[in-house]
Amino acid sequence: MREEGCALCEGAGGALVAQSARWRIVRADEPGFPAFYRVIWNDHVREFSDLTSAQRAECMDAVVQVETLIREHLQPAKVNLASLGNAVAHLHWHVIARFEWDSHFPGAVWAEARREPDAGRLARVEALRGILERDLGKLAFPA
Amino acid sequence: MREEGCALCEGAGGALVAQSARWRIVRADEPGFPAFYRVIWNDHVREFSDLTSAQRAECMDAVVQVETLIREHLQPAKVNLASLGNAVAHLHWHVIARFEWDSHFPGAVWAEARREPDAGRLARVEALRGILERDLGKLAFPA
Repeated sequence: MREEGCALCEGAGGALVAQSARWRIVRADEPGFPAFYRVIWNDHVREFSDLTSAQRAECMDAVVQVETLIREHLQPAKVNLASLGNAVAHLHWHVIARFEWDSHFPGAVWAEARREPDAGRLARVEALRGILERDLGKLAFPA
Repeated sequence: MREEGCALCEGAGGALVAQSARWRIVRADEPGFPAFYRVIWNDHVREFSDLTSAQRAECMDAVVQVETLIREHLQPAKVNLASLGNAVAHLHWHVIARFEWDSHFPGAVWAEARREPDAGRLARVEALRGILERDLGKLAFPA
């Protein structure tokens, strides 16, 4: 199930961190958000409710494992989960570590920035990312 | 499990549409978004991964039922799902019908507005909301 012209059918959608037969985890390139991941359903599916109940459970298990590892390794102030897809209507879940010092907190990452992020803390999270992604990769890699 | 001072422990969080023992569905008062619902977990839980696997399935079943009824009754361009909780860290899922004519599409509802929403179409969705909420109420009401 692929759709021509869909960015998430034709490309990985970010830096590949883990992949199973049905989903993949990528790190998004979103400056100022050092732990912004996406769980992308491999098949071209528009809405979460287009999945079967078993597929939804499998998809959310992956989302929850990303959240759990983010919490364990980075101790964020909050984890944000979202499936929007207004621009690219191919099912993908944003899983975003949020920190009080990030540019938008407590606003959504899609809202206006409130400040410059704390550069030192940003660098510290980036430094922890390698171990986090090693553990994320253990979830399922390769397919 | 209640937390003092938590807006979603101390209030409904919107216009009550349905409720079970463990969750409730409310309509949010977000002008310009006529079908903006929230599935609120009744217990004070911070992150989605704080729920057990069975609780997560129950929670997402409610979210998916809201999405399914929104699609059936309103045929939106997209449904947006999100659990953010940066301001109120009590687990709640936004379930939002998005339309090409709404003020923010294809941006997130938390981003900057791009236009005035189409007043005629907005009124039409508001007119359909009664039947949608009748069906939402059948999901679980009263507790």
